[in-house]
Amino acid sequence: MKNKKGVTIYDIAQELKVSPSTVSRALKDHFSISKEMIKEVKKVAQKRGYRPNSIAASLRNNRTNNIGVIISWINRPFVSSLISGIEEEANKAGYNVIISQSHDSFDNEVANARALYDSRISGLVVSLAMETQSYDHFNPFIQNNIPVVFVDRVADEFNSDKVVIDNFAAAYMATEHLIEQGCQRIALACGSQYRNIYRERESGYLAALREYNIPIKDEYIVHSDSLNAQEGFRIAEYFLSMETPPDAIFSVNDTAAVSFIQYAKEKGIKIPEELAVIGFNNDPVSLIIDPQLSTVSHPAIEMGKLAAQQVLKQSQYKDVVKSEAIMLRTELLVRASTKRK
Amino acid sequence: MKNKKGVTIYDIAQELKVSPSTVSRALKDHFSISKEMIKEVKKVAQKRGYRPNSIAASLRNNRTNNIGVIISWINRPFVSSLISGIEEEANKAGYNVIISQSHDSFDNEVANARALYDSRISGLVVSLAMETQSYDHFNPFIQNNIPVVFVDRVADEFNSDKVVIDNFAAAYMATEHLIEQGCQRIALACGSQYRNIYRERESGYLAALREYNIPIKDEYIVHSDSLNAQEGFRIAEYFLSMETPPDAIFSVNDTAAVSFIQYAKEKGIKIPEELAVIGFNNDPVSLIIDPQLSTVSHPAIEMGKLAAQQVLKQSQYKDVVKSEAIMLRTELLVRASTKRK
Repeated sequence: MKNKKGVTIYDIAQELKVSPSTVSRALKDHFSISKEMIKEVKKVAQKRGYRPNSIAASLRNNRTNNIGVIISWINRPFVSSLISGIEEEANKAGYNVIISQSHDSFDNEVANARALYDSRISGLVVSLAMETQSYDHFNPFIQNNIPVVFVDRVADEFNSDKVVIDNFAAAYMATEHLIEQGCQRIALACGSQYRNIYRERESGYLAALREYNIPIKDEYIVHSDSLNAQEGFRIAEYFLSMETPPDAIFSVNDTAAVSFIQYAKEKGIKIPEELAVIGFNNDPVSLIIDPQLSTVSHPAIEMGKLAAQQVLKQSQYKDVVKSEAIMLRTELLVRASTKRK
Repeated sequence: MKNKKGVTIYDIAQELKVSPSTVSRALKDHFSISKEMIKEVKKVAQKRGYRPNSIAASLRNNRTNNIGVIISWINRPFVSSLISGIEEEANKAGYNVIISQSHDSFDNEVANARALYDSRISGLVVSLAMETQSYDHFNPFIQNNIPVVFVDRVADEFNSDKVVIDNFAAAYMATEHLIEQGCQRIALACGSQYRNIYRERESGYLAALREYNIPIKDEYIVHSDSLNAQEGFRIAEYFLSMETPPDAIFSVNDTAAVSFIQYAKEKGIKIPEELAVIGFNNDPVSLIIDPQLSTVSHPAIEMGKLAAQQVLKQSQYKDVVKSEAIMLRTELLVRASTKRK
């Protein structure tokens, strides 16, 4: 930010013993800077004859202090925790967060990407829609040096930063727990195979069955593009009207798992004695359903924080191009819905 | 959009027998327009020598095709339904929706307003934070002819379109239902008095008690700035450790009502015989808790649609300045948590 007199924001920062970014924000009346500091900075700027180079500034400032987020559904507790994490980290750095939801539709996700690009965000965090199989809609960001970080539902095919959990290990752990409780006919309610998280959870489930020499039955595995409550009831009906119904169900989310418990209770099927149910995510509802739902907990807030940190890091160091993947651990939470022993 | 040759988008629209807005969007490669139509429009535009007046266009197009939404918490089912309604109506008109959450904090709401303004939205839908008492942060929108519509939690002091439910009538109905079930010591778990919806629900509660000559007891009324699950447990503990505890609680949201039921069950208090509980919102969890929760249902999606329609109407007819208030009805849903008779 050199101007005609050669005074830069760095000179002002030095005089006031604050960071250059504080000076920059104070000159823009940014909300994160106190009124006193803004006054102080402007006084020094005026005294030293500082004038921003408006052409350079407009080029640089073509972007706002906003980080965009594209997620599937805002009403999922995992998603809202993820966003809270992103907000916490972004706000600390003086950034705001604007959100758009894809409803798991590819067309919506493309429109969201366009909307956020037009909004001049300075970085993007994405958790992909169930349907998405092509990633061209993220190219405008990459081409314009706007960092894109994927979180949870990531694109293995797209070279970008990623923050994920160890889905394979989590699913293996959940399935192994059901086996240890004496379950022998373990069904899987899974999500779309386009998404890494569901593919990996299915792999973990299959690996555990193989490890314990339990035969894998194709009819015990259901894939659904929207594991919502209604779909949960439909899947429960499918499993529980079989000639040899499963004695346990591992659901890759809590929403469907809760529907399984409700359906089984309606039909007089005892949980966990006749049917053990385990979910995934540790949604608040897992503690409200009776019996309480065993599940796998996610460090969702932590994931959000890390994703925001990656975006901020990339937007500060544009020359760092290496792509980074961060993988986090999960935890098995054993409750009444699976405790047979 | 006159250009040097005098050819306008209206001329192109006439030739192709489509609307001017279709032409305008097609020229901008808008996602809502088919590739065939975009090709067709551009062909005609080139043939007739159409060139957009870039200064006028940049003035007009200083705004994106995005509608901004500021809400309290995205993880409340009422809020996500509201947003779905906004999205549905906005998408139909070729607009996208970007969301930011205030977490019920005034400072966040101010930062959100700034972030969305910087994002060049063409309209704003707001449901106010619990804390908000001043509305200056919406002035930049009004001054720049960007429509602002309030929904559910509205600012009576601010002259702008509003979409609300009849909170007084809803609370009167809920309280009257408890009285009809034989409850005599009816407590109220209420939200912040800064917000119209909680003030009006309290008025409805008080009016019903007066109508039935039931004495109003101050200690039976609690105001909370965040009726979340934890707060629900604290309020339940307060009410149920009284010497003469209430025999019914009307909670202005389902989240706290569910906590009341969970707390009472833990303490061996029978629901609804010893304690009747009614909530508000008809969240999905009201059907998951056992016994199921009586509640008041909101037309949340409808409210969102109407709010978006108001924004779109205003942005099309800038000279219409009259402020419009739309009030919608609610419905009482009687379930096991209050059914004593």
